[in-house]
Order: sequence, then structure tokens, then C-alpha cells
Amino acid sequence: MHTEFEDYLASQTDLPAGKILQISSMATLRRLKRNEMLLSAGEVCRYKVFVINGLLRNFHIKPDGNEHILHFSPQHTWTLDVESYDKHTPSLINIEAVEKSTVLLWAKPDFDQLLSGIPELKKFSERLISRTIYNNRNRILTILSSTPEERYADFVNAYPDYLARLPLRMVAAYLGISLKTLTRIRHAQLQREAGIMDK
Amino acid sequence: MHTEFEDYLASQTDLPAGKILQISSMATLRRLKRNEMLLSAGEVCRYKVFVINGLLRNFHIKPDGNEHILHFSPQHTWTLDVESYDKHTPSLINIEAVEKSTVLLWAKPDFDQLLSGIPELKKFSERLISRTIYNNRNRILTILSSTPEERYADFVNAYPDYLARLPLRMVAAYLGISLKTLTRIRHAQLQREAGIMDK
Repeated sequence: MHTEFEDYLASQTDLPAGKILQISSMATLRRLKRNEMLLSAGEVCRYKVFVINGLLRNFHIKPDGNEHILHFSPQHTWTLDVESYDKHTPSLINIEAVEKSTVLLWAKPDFDQLLSGIPELKKFSERLISRTIYNNRNRILTILSSTPEERYADFVNAYPDYLARLPLRMVAAYLGISLKTLTRIRHAQLQREAGIMDK
Repeated sequence: MHTEFEDYLASQTDLPAGKILQISSMATLRRLKRNEMLLSAGEVCRYKVFVINGLLRNFHIKPDGNEHILHFSPQHTWTLDVESYDKHTPSLINIEAVEKSTVLLWAKPDFDQLLSGIPELKKFSERLISRTIYNNRNRILTILSSTPEERYADFVNAYPDYLARLPLRMVAAYLGISLKTLTRIRHAQLQREAGIMDK
């Protein structure tokens, strides 16, 4: 049905093929254009989302219009606004395709039914939740404790391919620094690299 | 056995008294002096911790000696280094009593056994995990998007009693701003308040 998702689930879990097909068959495929919104702040997040290909971002817009990016969701990751999804409350964040993307959507009642009927899926889901907690913890530490230069270096190390795929303003919105600061950091780095190459 | 914890669990869950006693009886009570460490970075976090009274903090020390506080754990909350606890890896963070505190500790194998034997405890635990995710998400957004002034105002609103209980350097380490900036913000605020009172 959705072969790429099924291969992913087979590689990540011990689920038998029948269960994988059952999970896959409950999903709806959706294609997103570049910059298309999947969830807008104020709406209730009704779907669990798996990214088959492309790149999404979860971001918040402050009343002053400034955007702040919580995280990016590349190929073969899951995303949603978990608080809105769990509690049926309006979402504080937006989810948008940064580039042309294909996603699978499960409506919450369907996914809940899958979780309660398939213990191995529930365990897998708990592993993903744990990973989210570790990642968020590390992100808080990084933002609290690192200089803009260190944050940028971490970002380039962790996501080497993102720089080519993202507008710089989004990198800045993810790092929590101004575009001006980011431009200065990159400029200084290029100059250092040029200096090394001169030697 | 640990009456205060049992009352807490009865107020938060529908667990029958027998199960509550079973959970309570697996815990070890520990009293911590002010500034006493419960977990040091580099150790494996082997316990789930419930704070009966007092105040703990989870913090990270950078190689340059700077401290950054992930969160505080007041009375009737749970704490641990979740990644170290789950994976049996050395902890990146420290947990310390900010003031004289009493905690309950469950060794991981004991708590795992309770979780698998008591579905209602498992559900409660999942609720706590969700809350952690929401809180971390909101903390990331706050640090990314707020000015130091806004962060301080949020902190005072969210934790009105902490200011009197914490050294200012810890408030600064939680907000991710320098002590100098925090002092400046507080000074400006006091002057505004004095101005209002003069009128």
C-alpha cells in the first residue's frame, strides 16, 4: 500500500507483515507543495504524521511576527503537535512543508485503535516518545548553554545536508539567533576557511 | 508507609489502596541536605525520584564551569535523568537539593516491575511523560522566542514562590541569561514599581 513506510516499519520493529499492512492501510497519503501548511496555529492537530519524503518544520509565530522553529522533520520521521493532538486543544504551532513533501496521516481515533490492538506498535511508539524527550532535553541544554557560534557548528554537524535545503532565515529561526548574527558567523567561518586554504 | 506519597497517588489516580501500598512499599526514603547531590554527571541514573518535600534542580555544568538549569523539581513532582535511566548510560546532568529535601527512590528494576504489573500506574506514568513533553516544548519556545525581560516575567508568574527560595544565580542559570542581566532587569522592575507607588 505505502511500500516505503512499510519498509521503514519492518526495519525499525519486529512487527509481522500482516500488522504492518494493517497499520499502513489506515493511513491517508497527502502530497504537500513547498511552503504548504499541514497544520496552522489555532487548529486542533487531528493527525499523526509520518514523512515519506521531503522536509517539514514545526514553528511558532510570535505576535510581533517573528518565527521560531521548534524542529525540522525530515524523511522517515514522525511529527505532530503532541499537546494539541492529545488534548484536542488549539495548536500553538504550525507545521509546514519546507520543500515538496509526501506524508502519511493517521486520524487520532484510528491510531489509538492501532496502538491498543498492537502492543508492539505501542512499544515502538514509546521508544519514539523517549527519543523526543532526549532530543528536547538536549535542545534545551544547547540553547541555554551554547554561544551562537557553537549552536551553528552543532547544527552543521548534526544536519550536514540541511544548510543546502533551507533558507538561512530558517536556520537562524531554529538556532534562536538573528539572521544578522548568523550571517556574521558564516562570514567569519568562510574567512577562516579561506585563510587555511591560503597556507 | 510513606503517607504523603500515598495521599498524592490517591489524589492523582484511581489506584486502589492495595496497589498504592504496593508501590509505596518498594520505595526507599532519603533525606538530602541543602546542596547535597543526588546524582552526579557521569554516574548512571538508577532511580526514579519522587520529591516529598523540598526543592531539587537538574543542571548541567559546561567545561568552562558555567551551570545551566534544565528544570526545578518542587514538592510532589518526579525527577530523574531519563536518558541515563532508560539506557544505563552515564548521565550528562546533575541532580541536587537546592534546599533540605526528602525524596523517595525506586530502583529501575523495581519500578519496571510495578509498571508492568499495574496498568493504571503505567497510564499515570504516560500522563507524566506527556506533561514532560509539553513542558519541554514550551520551554524551548520560551527560550527561543522571548527577551530576557519576558523570560523573567514568565518565571515569576509560573513560580511565584521560587524567587524567595533560590539564589539569583540559579534563576539566571534557569533563564539562560547572565546574573548581570538578571540584576539589571530586577533593578529596572523595582524602579518601575517604586514609580507606580509614588503616584
